[in-house]
Amino acid sequence: MKSNILVINGHPDPESYCKGLSDAYIKGAQRAGSNVNFIDLSHIQFNPNLKYGYRKRTDLEDDLVKAQELIRWADHLVFVYPLWWGAMPAVLKGFIDRIFLPGFAMKYREGSLLWDKLLKGKSAHLIVTMDTPRWYNHLIYRQAGHRVMKSNILNFSGVSPVRVTEISPIKGSTEAFRLKWLEKIEALGMKQGKGQ
Amino acid sequence: MKSNILVINGHPDPESYCKGLSDAYIKGAQRAGSNVNFIDLSHIQFNPNLKYGYRKRTDLEDDLVKAQELIRWADHLVFVYPLWWGAMPAVLKGFIDRIFLPGFAMKYREGSLLWDKLLKGKSAHLIVTMDTPRWYNHLIYRQAGHRVMKSNILNFSGVSPVRVTEISPIKGSTEAFRLKWLEKIEALGMKQGKGQ
Repeated sequence: MKSNILVINGHPDPESYCKGLSDAYIKGAQRAGSNVNFIDLSHIQFNPNLKYGYRKRTDLEDDLVKAQELIRWADHLVFVYPLWWGAMPAVLKGFIDRIFLPGFAMKYREGSLLWDKLLKGKSAHLIVTMDTPRWYNHLIYRQAGHRVMKSNILNFSGVSPVRVTEISPIKGSTEAFRLKWLEKIEALGMKQGKGQ
Repeated sequence: MKSNILVINGHPDPESYCKGLSDAYIKGAQRAGSNVNFIDLSHIQFNPNLKYGYRKRTDLEDDLVKAQELIRWADHLVFVYPLWWGAMPAVLKGFIDRIFLPGFAMKYREGSLLWDKLLKGKSAHLIVTMDTPRWYNHLIYRQAGHRVMKSNILNFSGVSPVRVTEISPIKGSTEAFRLKWLEKIEALGMKQGKGQ
């Protein structure tokens, strides 16, 4: 099965470890023969601030129009990002705020509390680097940051299932730890690319 | 008791209902005789994108230096913002990412998993507008967006207690509903201003 995979790097720093993880995933997926596209938020041009909220339309920059097309094209979305203060960086939240608009991600039904999920049929994978130890994130924070991305954003728009891979703790990690994870992520990309 | 209250409006639209709620709170708190300052994210100038993460220092804009001073000055922080996709708007997350830096909000201890909470002694109040019905936010989303703000950001930095007021659903609400809430929020401001 050749699937269309879209990798989105949500770290704003072009030299980040998340960029390295994105590259590793792409390498694996391409090696398995799948079609891969990449949106790199450290690189594309857009204003993360949805200045007028939902009161007044804000025109999409070209890079955001293209991002919407790529999301429509994809069967599988991979988000790679760091957890800062328990949640995705502002640039990734801004990317969501700007393009996950009514009519693209979902559509409210007239006179109803229900909505149409416009991104149905896609699955997703969150690859999240964090400093918080895993047990602490699960026990104390109840994975709030993952939950926002998984339930409030992706499931709400019809994307399911959403898998999560946590890479932690990054702070004070050894090079060996980081290299090992690059290999694991490349293997995950290859597995997904093969449709396994 | 005269307390120092800082109100932070996290809605990027200068004509938003959140701006109205902020004004109402301020009115009540001032009437009660407390000292109030206001940071309006629809107005101040800064880049919400922490471009180099924690790898390389990004200089603070003047408005952010002033924001840090105001947070240090305050006894009580009031955040007014809408929940978009289950979480605060990118501009508010960016405000946190940019100014809640090690050395300001907290400080990791050398060779330890523990940290010093540098904003101890302050309390906070989140006033959150949302379209999601309250029961759905509690039951399905487990208040993930509130939890990030309360636990991962504010408690982590020593701010406690953190109270939450939810105004919902905004979508399709009547003018009477919104006016009533403006009055309630003004009363909350007055109560806090009196130190009750």
